[in-house]
Amino acid sequence: MDDRVIEHARVLVNWSTHVKRGEMVLVRAPPNAHELVIAISAEVARKGASCMVSMESDEMAKAYLLNAEEQTISLYPRHFARAVDECDVIIGIEAPIDTMTLSSVNPEKLIARSRTRKPILDMALAKRWCDTVHPCEALAYQANMTLEEYRDFVYDSILIDWKDASQNMSVLRERLDSYKNIRILGKDTDLFAETSGRIWVVADGKNNMPCGEVYTSPVEDTVEGRIWFDIPFIYQGKIIENVRLVFERGRVVDYSAGQGEQTLKAIIEADEGAKKLGEIAFGMNKGITKYTMNMLFDEKMWGTIHCALGMALKECNGTNESAIHVDMIKDMHTGEVLAGDGTIYKDGKFFYDLV
Amino acid sequence: MDDRVIEHARVLVNWSTHVKRGEMVLVRAPPNAHELVIAISAEVARKGASCMVSMESDEMAKAYLLNAEEQTISLYPRHFARAVDECDVIIGIEAPIDTMTLSSVNPEKLIARSRTRKPILDMALAKRWCDTVHPCEALAYQANMTLEEYRDFVYDSILIDWKDASQNMSVLRERLDSYKNIRILGKDTDLFAETSGRIWVVADGKNNMPCGEVYTSPVEDTVEGRIWFDIPFIYQGKIIENVRLVFERGRVVDYSAGQGEQTLKAIIEADEGAKKLGEIAFGMNKGITKYTMNMLFDEKMWGTIHCALGMALKECNGTNESAIHVDMIKDMHTGEVLAGDGTIYKDGKFFYDLV
Repeated sequence: MDDRVIEHARVLVNWSTHVKRGEMVLVRAPPNAHELVIAISAEVARKGASCMVSMESDEMAKAYLLNAEEQTISLYPRHFARAVDECDVIIGIEAPIDTMTLSSVNPEKLIARSRTRKPILDMALAKRWCDTVHPCEALAYQANMTLEEYRDFVYDSILIDWKDASQNMSVLRERLDSYKNIRILGKDTDLFAETSGRIWVVADGKNNMPCGEVYTSPVEDTVEGRIWFDIPFIYQGKIIENVRLVFERGRVVDYSAGQGEQTLKAIIEADEGAKKLGEIAFGMNKGITKYTMNMLFDEKMWGTIHCALGMALKECNGTNESAIHVDMIKDMHTGEVLAGDGTIYKDGKFFYDLV
Repeated sequence: MDDRVIEHARVLVNWSTHVKRGEMVLVRAPPNAHELVIAISAEVARKGASCMVSMESDEMAKAYLLNAEEQTISLYPRHFARAVDECDVIIGIEAPIDTMTLSSVNPEKLIARSRTRKPILDMALAKRWCDTVHPCEALAYQANMTLEEYRDFVYDSILIDWKDASQNMSVLRERLDSYKNIRILGKDTDLFAETSGRIWVVADGKNNMPCGEVYTSPVEDTVEGRIWFDIPFIYQGKIIENVRLVFERGRVVDYSAGQGEQTLKAIIEADEGAKKLGEIAFGMNKGITKYTMNMLFDEKMWGTIHCALGMALKECNGTNESAIHVDMIKDMHTGEVLAGDGTIYKDGKFFYDLV
């Protein structure tokens, strides 16, 4: 086994979810993640905790949904719910055989399934939890890398000194919290938002691994200007790229996309809240040096900013409500961020002292 | 997917465990069995039931046990217990990556693990449950076949008309129940046992798949004579073959083995009940034409008889108690079985009318 799989398991069990003696750990994983599951089993044993694994794959979900009537999809999985209810920690692993498996399933069935399982999701979110990936061929392919290259890419983003990274991000967070507004400048971009009364939050690997971002929800109605998101992303199986948004008094008043404009339209017209910004964030993971069309990684990429249309974040004092929360990413290797009256970031460099 | 995987899933869900609308199904499977798990998911959906899968592998168990202190191994997995408690049906699938994985784990740790999980096992046995295999390279290798040959072998034993097979076995069961004793004749073999007051039972695929045997527990103290078991088997990782046993007034008074005699000695000396026969049975699965060192298959092989030293079976009115129950198999393609005063079986043929 690659030593980095063992290190990955240690990060998940020790840093991300801080498993303690006597605790119940539930791992949710597809068969492709067996190697990481083995390493997690070892690490959970070392902590004196108990481990069970729920095998979940897109192929199983597809087979089930294609053969299930509506009444069956609404059947509450009581056995799974009880397992979730009883556990202290949940670790979710992504490692698909094929990233396209669910694309042939009727979206209404997928939504009905999510609705049935909503109480379980709510239970799970109230535990200590972390989502991660185990490098596999399908994800390497999606990232346009060989599996070996992709392994390097994944572990370079995960096997970092999270204590240091966390401290660095805290310095930025404190700085941002001291200002009342933020302004993002770059090519085709000049976006302003007030942030007073809102809280900037450090994401340092407790719920996502890899992680690394500092984010807030801006004061919704104060967002003004335009922004160009130059990094492509996937929404419900569709690629969207070169999104341009124009805001007036907090609302999107004009938009375009180089690809996937129909999907962008559907996002913006989902509901009233979908026209407003629910999040502004700095990607802070220096191990992530290129995008791979996987939001778990892309939004944390060093030298980027991302904004989300839709639902705001409660922990930031955000108020915007929406059924959606769609992240879009902007490369800031050439670009500038102002806060208060001064520049805090320019062309890949922050204007404050890192630890 | 091989159509036979789909048929296998149908046999498990419909015939073996008879899954009904609204029920909770728990599948216990290693990653290697993903294909069968997908097919089971589809079939469970068709029945209107809910499916969850516990991923369990020897590799995960080994990693956990090698890193767990005694106190950790005794930690009760409450989350898994609650899932088991809540389900109606349990399907267990064997499909190892390597059949030797657990051989390097201290047996005491394995026993301690079983002890911790005994209440869960008891809960599981009170449900509708069935154990099966999914053909894989390690099992093919153990059976000395290519994977393709092994797939044919497995499905030939599973994809049969179980209703017909069950009726045929019921005819034999009724016949055997009408006699008060049984006598097995063959090379180096003349074994007699009384069976009056005992019940012959048909095993037709409800708990094992493949299945196919008609068994009882003989009146322990009436077993007299000698028997040669010419088919090798594995006990705790050790091969034992050419076992010869001599009984007087129900107890083994002499024994030998061509290979593994020390292991045979340990079996017989396990406790007082280990010296007595807990089971006599006819293998009735015509699809199983050769042994593969896997007891799930071998004991059901057509044209064989097997006897077990140790624990008798409650459903047969058996009374022998022991910590062990070790099956040993005898080829009866040349051999004869008498019941009452007449021959009921000779050289591969039963002397009664099959359905």
